[in-house]
Amino acid sequence: MAASDLARTFLSEARGIVDAALDAWLPADDPRAPRLAEAMRYSVEAGGKRLRPALALAACRAVGGRDTDVLPFAGALELIHTYSLIHDDLPAMDDDDLRRGRPTSHKVYGEAQAILAGDAMHTLAFELLLTQTPDASTACQLGALLAQASGHDGMVGGQVDDLAAEGAGADGVDVERLESIHRRKTGALLTASVRGGALAAGAGPAAVDALTRYGTALGLAFQIADDVLDATSTADVLGKTPGKDAADAKLTYVALEGVDAARARCARETERALEALAGLPGLDGEGAALLTSIAHFVAQRDR
Amino acid sequence: MAASDLARTFLSEARGIVDAALDAWLPADDPRAPRLAEAMRYSVEAGGKRLRPALALAACRAVGGRDTDVLPFAGALELIHTYSLIHDDLPAMDDDDLRRGRPTSHKVYGEAQAILAGDAMHTLAFELLLTQTPDASTACQLGALLAQASGHDGMVGGQVDDLAAEGAGADGVDVERLESIHRRKTGALLTASVRGGALAAGAGPAAVDALTRYGTALGLAFQIADDVLDATSTADVLGKTPGKDAADAKLTYVALEGVDAARARCARETERALEALAGLPGLDGEGAALLTSIAHFVAQRDR
Repeated sequence: MAASDLARTFLSEARGIVDAALDAWLPADDPRAPRLAEAMRYSVEAGGKRLRPALALAACRAVGGRDTDVLPFAGALELIHTYSLIHDDLPAMDDDDLRRGRPTSHKVYGEAQAILAGDAMHTLAFELLLTQTPDASTACQLGALLAQASGHDGMVGGQVDDLAAEGAGADGVDVERLESIHRRKTGALLTASVRGGALAAGAGPAAVDALTRYGTALGLAFQIADDVLDATSTADVLGKTPGKDAADAKLTYVALEGVDAARARCARETERALEALAGLPGLDGEGAALLTSIAHFVAQRDR
Repeated sequence: MAASDLARTFLSEARGIVDAALDAWLPADDPRAPRLAEAMRYSVEAGGKRLRPALALAACRAVGGRDTDVLPFAGALELIHTYSLIHDDLPAMDDDDLRRGRPTSHKVYGEAQAILAGDAMHTLAFELLLTQTPDASTACQLGALLAQASGHDGMVGGQVDDLAAEGAGADGVDVERLESIHRRKTGALLTASVRGGALAAGAGPAAVDALTRYGTALGLAFQIADDVLDATSTADVLGKTPGKDAADAKLTYVALEGVDAARARCARETERALEALAGLPGLDGEGAALLTSIAHFVAQRDR
């Protein structure tokens, strides 16, 4: 059995749980604002791995929490991730026509609706988290974490930095700069997924810290694997246009170091994630096996 | 002394308080993401009346709350309002070049940065509210209120509905439809400003309800006055392009009813706001005078 089979089974289960919750939480069609709810559902229902919600669920379970404690946070993570994809795909940004194997939101609904559907999902993430999390104090803590990870000092800041680096070309950009971009652009939300799962479960500081280190390393491994996939995969497998990074002269680990060195770097981050787990107090065998398997899955996935 | 002089003095004081808080809370320039912080500050510092934060402060004071209880919520309201203006001004939406007397964000920073600056402000609103509000349970309640007022069922839904109505032309659109649009597009956030001020102060349900009714009527009066101003004012006074509604065949009270009927409708909503105050338990003379003056100011303002 491959090291990542356990993760695949869990991701499938987690996706079912999260998708059912999102389906209940997303708005129904509203005759007053035609196609807004439809556009929101279109992008959420386009699929994706639901990796962020799954990480939150896994971390919560690993430290003894219940799914119901973390589910609103898990749903909010996916809404934030999805809104960012809609906005990143816009003509003024990455100008992508294909996402998760389907035409991007602005291709189907037009730019204005795509911007607004993203905005509505962004807001809904906080609405859900703050109204559905069982405990108000935890909700407030998780909302602050989500905002810090996804705003100017996290995801959005990383995207601005990435666009600026792209404009500057590869000259003068090194792996440290690239890592700094990715720690914010994709890493911050992945780290927050794991950390928030631990906080939702009411874990103590040592467990929260160990899981945060795990999430940080896993987040970098994820992004490096993403760059490798873009350079080596096909549209059929990937569900989006491959080779686009190279065509756009995007700053990637593969562009800076080549495929082999990028793969080695990904393996080192995976090791770092596993080392963090070794320092996690009270982690039982089941939790350790799942989090280990997820780390391997992230590095070895084919899309 | 005009009925709205008290309001003008208060708005000026409130603006000073809110601007100082926003200046402290907005991010400093970050060499990793050049111009993001600058773009965020550019739009916030472009000015504006700070009506939403002022309403929150006034409502909070009127029921005995302290400014510090409501200031993070007040700042969050202004950030949400400002992000929505940046996105509404984009070429794919209203395509406006001028806002608050200065070139719009995308004219200065480009579309990608404008979209992302709006996104970062949107997130920062929730970050601020959830990290700076003194009490976690109140923060959670205010965050849920802000999200409900500004998302798919509030501001963003109203904007989508407005774009759809615009596309359809004035045929088959009546005042009821227009009012339904404005209750969400601008009314929901104005109502939430007043309601949130009352909640932040820990007011009881009867006071919260009375202030919510006041805010709802005031929100409609505000929008009707806005339509009248667009039809009758000049760019110098207004700080944005006037007559644009008519040029864009926008759905407005003036287009549907004419200027005189719109003014009469505005006066009726102002009366309704004052009636709501009469039912507010425990309102002292000072609070009543201020909220009355604000209602008159909103209807009689010249920009």
